[in-house]
Amino acid sequence: MPVSPGPATDPATLLEQARDGSRVALARLLSYIERGGETAMAVARLAYRAEVPFTLGLTGAPGAGKSTLTDRLISQARSGWPEPDAEDVPQVGVLAIDPTSPFSGGAILGDRVRMGQHALDPTVFIRSMATRGHLGGLSLAVPDAVRLLGAAGIGLVIVETVGVGQMEVEIASAADTTVVVVTPGWGDSMQASKAGLLEVADVFVINKADRPGAREARRDLDQMLDLARPDAWRPEIVDTTATSGDGLADLWGAVARHRRHLATTNQLVARRSQRLAQELRGVLRARTEARIDELAAGEEFTTAVKALVAGELDPYQAADRLLGA
Amino acid sequence: MPVSPGPATDPATLLEQARDGSRVALARLLSYIERGGETAMAVARLAYRAEVPFTLGLTGAPGAGKSTLTDRLISQARSGWPEPDAEDVPQVGVLAIDPTSPFSGGAILGDRVRMGQHALDPTVFIRSMATRGHLGGLSLAVPDAVRLLGAAGIGLVIVETVGVGQMEVEIASAADTTVVVVTPGWGDSMQASKAGLLEVADVFVINKADRPGAREARRDLDQMLDLARPDAWRPEIVDTTATSGDGLADLWGAVARHRRHLATTNQLVARRSQRLAQELRGVLRARTEARIDELAAGEEFTTAVKALVAGELDPYQAADRLLGA
Repeated sequence: MPVSPGPATDPATLLEQARDGSRVALARLLSYIERGGETAMAVARLAYRAEVPFTLGLTGAPGAGKSTLTDRLISQARSGWPEPDAEDVPQVGVLAIDPTSPFSGGAILGDRVRMGQHALDPTVFIRSMATRGHLGGLSLAVPDAVRLLGAAGIGLVIVETVGVGQMEVEIASAADTTVVVVTPGWGDSMQASKAGLLEVADVFVINKADRPGAREARRDLDQMLDLARPDAWRPEIVDTTATSGDGLADLWGAVARHRRHLATTNQLVARRSQRLAQELRGVLRARTEARIDELAAGEEFTTAVKALVAGELDPYQAADRLLGA
Repeated sequence: MPVSPGPATDPATLLEQARDGSRVALARLLSYIERGGETAMAVARLAYRAEVPFTLGLTGAPGAGKSTLTDRLISQARSGWPEPDAEDVPQVGVLAIDPTSPFSGGAILGDRVRMGQHALDPTVFIRSMATRGHLGGLSLAVPDAVRLLGAAGIGLVIVETVGVGQMEVEIASAADTTVVVVTPGWGDSMQASKAGLLEVADVFVINKADRPGAREARRDLDQMLDLARPDAWRPEIVDTTATSGDGLADLWGAVARHRRHLATTNQLVARRSQRLAQELRGVLRARTEARIDELAAGEEFTTAVKALVAGELDPYQAADRLLGA
């Protein structure tokens, strides 16, 4: 009796299955990336040369309604990009990032709850993402994950972060279009992050715009933008009420207009080059840090420390010797 | 008419002058170390093989009376180590470290004020220290500075930090004997740093012990030490009133007992080896980070990013290629 084969585990086979629509295979590949090491690198390299999806970064304070907004944005995206660039968005992916959580395992239930109306839609893929071992952490794991989703045929990836911490803003802003979500009265609670958010936003959303203070929030944003952003692109400010869906078509339109702006001004290529340069720096740093850990655990390091103690070498000579080795 | 030579600027001449007692030369060499670069390295290497001074780290919350304590400790030290290891301390140096200040220039006046009764004593050298360019920052600059003072004939160096932030505790604990200064009622204000301070202290000082709460502070410390430090050395707890000088002979005695303990258990060598290993790791990290900055500014990096954009390389290949170069 032949033994039935277990599910595939090698990256190449899994990627083929993911391309053919297997979400199980795609989820497994994502786990590989989270876990880091040689397998993560193999997955990342397989995915690298695929079409890069359009990425939308979404950030804002916890409780601003980001996951409901994302849910609504998926529906908008599934109806395609609006005129004048009307085209289909064949598949939509969401990566929900929480840098403060070391595990995404517990998020599986959360993912199912979050999928909401899209739970049965085979063209939508939603996953929480954490990092357990990826060298360089989330800021290197997320771009690998985005490209993996692209390699599986996903044309739009929404990268949503839970908060507005430095790393979260950095991750959400490593996107083609970055949407910053605020709520009426946001100013006081987000004082510390204001400047950073102002700098990265391509589109501002005032969510829960049915609440008091929405007009003041818009006026505040407008004033800050007058001062802070004299460059070519002035972020649009869109009022939404994610729970009812009000303003979502406007938001999708604003995203589309920014996407068009990127394309016509050739900034899409410039931004992506810049991100790749940043990523390459990150890989270089992660590589050399790993090498130092290796060095410090080795025999040559112990010998060098002995020579330091004996005064046969000074720290700079010892470092040169170890780096030469 | 012969041009009169300006003051020496080369490290070797300055170090000779510093050895002969020139504080001006010593101060200039310290500035070189603060400034970083090739000259800093040259100074550090010249000083490396000299006798290493005994180092006393002193840390505690701002306002705990550390500089007055240091002032009193200098007087104690100048009277020599107590029995049974009675020996002279020929010269005393103080490095006052403030990691939050990028400049020590403004501290010159502060230094003069601080020198207090030792202002005219040629055997005492007091300097604030900051870092303007030293690769690896203060945690690499301070050990270089301590060795420089040793090379100038200083036998005891007190490294005093302004507060109990992570870096300050790290710097103060990179000493042969670490003194942690608390005051009555310290527990509430230093909740966050308690565990870290408990771990690094070789001697505890309850300064301002004439104020209410000193007995409770001692009881608290005792209880914490019972729980936290079951190792061979149990830190002594000394009551002082730095302003009057009360308890200072006790404190100096406790420092001397810890010094004796280090010598008789061979831990002095072990601790110094460990510090050198830590320092070597720091130099390796600083070197490789500098190398990455260099790489990222170079033509090869630009070429690599272009290849990334074109999909001819993936980030991992590009990193390998750059690191191989």
